[in-house]
Amino acid sequence: MPVRSAGQVEAGGMKRIAIAGVGLIGASFALALRQAGFRGELVGISSPRSIETGIKVGAISRGVALEEAAATADLIYLSQPIEAIVRTLSVLGPIARKDCLITDAGSTKTTIVETANRYVRMAQFLGGHPMAGKESRGAETADPDLFAGRPYVLTPTASAGDTGEFRQWLERIGARVIEMKPREHDETVAFTSHLPQLLSTALAATLANKEDGHISEVFGPGLIDMTRLALSAPEVWMSVLRTNRPAVNEALSAYAAMLAELQNKLNDDNLEQVFSVASTFSRQLRKKPFTGSTSG
Amino acid sequence: MPVRSAGQVEAGGMKRIAIAGVGLIGASFALALRQAGFRGELVGISSPRSIETGIKVGAISRGVALEEAAATADLIYLSQPIEAIVRTLSVLGPIARKDCLITDAGSTKTTIVETANRYVRMAQFLGGHPMAGKESRGAETADPDLFAGRPYVLTPTASAGDTGEFRQWLERIGARVIEMKPREHDETVAFTSHLPQLLSTALAATLANKEDGHISEVFGPGLIDMTRLALSAPEVWMSVLRTNRPAVNEALSAYAAMLAELQNKLNDDNLEQVFSVASTFSRQLRKKPFTGSTSG
Repeated sequence: MPVRSAGQVEAGGMKRIAIAGVGLIGASFALALRQAGFRGELVGISSPRSIETGIKVGAISRGVALEEAAATADLIYLSQPIEAIVRTLSVLGPIARKDCLITDAGSTKTTIVETANRYVRMAQFLGGHPMAGKESRGAETADPDLFAGRPYVLTPTASAGDTGEFRQWLERIGARVIEMKPREHDETVAFTSHLPQLLSTALAATLANKEDGHISEVFGPGLIDMTRLALSAPEVWMSVLRTNRPAVNEALSAYAAMLAELQNKLNDDNLEQVFSVASTFSRQLRKKPFTGSTSG
Repeated sequence: MPVRSAGQVEAGGMKRIAIAGVGLIGASFALALRQAGFRGELVGISSPRSIETGIKVGAISRGVALEEAAATADLIYLSQPIEAIVRTLSVLGPIARKDCLITDAGSTKTTIVETANRYVRMAQFLGGHPMAGKESRGAETADPDLFAGRPYVLTPTASAGDTGEFRQWLERIGARVIEMKPREHDETVAFTSHLPQLLSTALAATLANKEDGHISEVFGPGLIDMTRLALSAPEVWMSVLRTNRPAVNEALSAYAAMLAELQNKLNDDNLEQVFSVASTFSRQLRKKPFTGSTSG
């Protein structure tokens, strides 16, 4: 996709961006902006340790207090755990200035958008969720290409004003913008993200429970794939799941029903059709998402 | 590990090895032997198409009939689908000569070992299962390093004679030999291999069932991991599952119980401990298997 020259970008544009929560996502977003030509200031609102790491990896130039960001930033990017985003919004919302756009990278959207609707007064708010990540955390493993080719969901509400420049930056960093309603987003990721996480955790827990010396010796590469998500930090997931319970329950119930069906078909020697459906779906999944053009 | 010189290897050693089923595993085994210094003849018993591909990738020099292999091979390596291994054993077993070792690479062992016990007369038999593979099939994607650092289960029975030279070759190709009883093997892989396969298939089938346009657009790298196994060829898995039903049922039931527990804990906001157990187990899985020394 065409990348504008830095001159064009900065004319009339964002000059100061504050990253609240300088972890993997926040620091990767900052590095991605730099790589795409952003020449303004990037500052962090985070713990002293994260600020230090963020400076070291070149994501931000310094730490600032939330109040300074509220008064001076053109864009505030909330890349904290969900419950911290909610707390930040309650403090930031009432004081952020009119020309500021607040956006977030939280994995569930309904609670966050409701909180923003309640607290954000003069500033603009646009909910977001980059479908990118690693099992690692922290700015140490930040990657300027983390968002390239990945879906980036935005959940604009009626109150969101002009978000064109932010969307242009998302295009420039290679993200594929998809617009959804907050609840629609949460219902979809319950199936495509939260369910896979729970299945991986349940698999690892099932094997951990099985007292058999050979379990952790005799396995192939498939088990490594299937337990990668189980490595994820529990703290992060607790707040994701807590803010999406109805949809996660629906996904878990649908899955449990499919597993029971599979077990019946195993015993009737009638599994082949389910395997075919699953294999076709998985192949399509690998073709579709990373090919389409980006959209705004 | 020390690699003997080809001279030492061939003194008194295997001179002709026949690979029955020149697919991913069979052709990779042949390439691995060559890479480790095997200088004897490698021939294939397979379909004309597989023989052609096997010759093209340098795994075998020619195709032979099963009867010729039975009369002349020092080692016959059965790397076919399970039910084909069973059929081959019923024909090969009665005619293979005394100095021949028959071994197999089937994913379940009880049925195959029972079949060998019934049909193999003069030759030796040693059941095996290399815990290696890819979602692809066929000699086209064969890889001489497929077995390096991977567990390779052997299920010796009382009747197996001198299998020392074959075991030495397994060491030379870098496999980690683990001895188990056939049923013990099948119970373990029900949890570490067959269960992950079914979970991945059930996940892909659940998502395919959900009629929602965003499902195949809005997802992160985790879903790609969790649906990789679902790409596997149905035909291969039907015979694996058919020959390990009791153990697979046990694994599926244990998993379903864990998933129900997880769902309860989700609603009680009490998931953190299960996440910790799962994360610890998954980390250990990544440390253990590929570090230990090989053993015979």
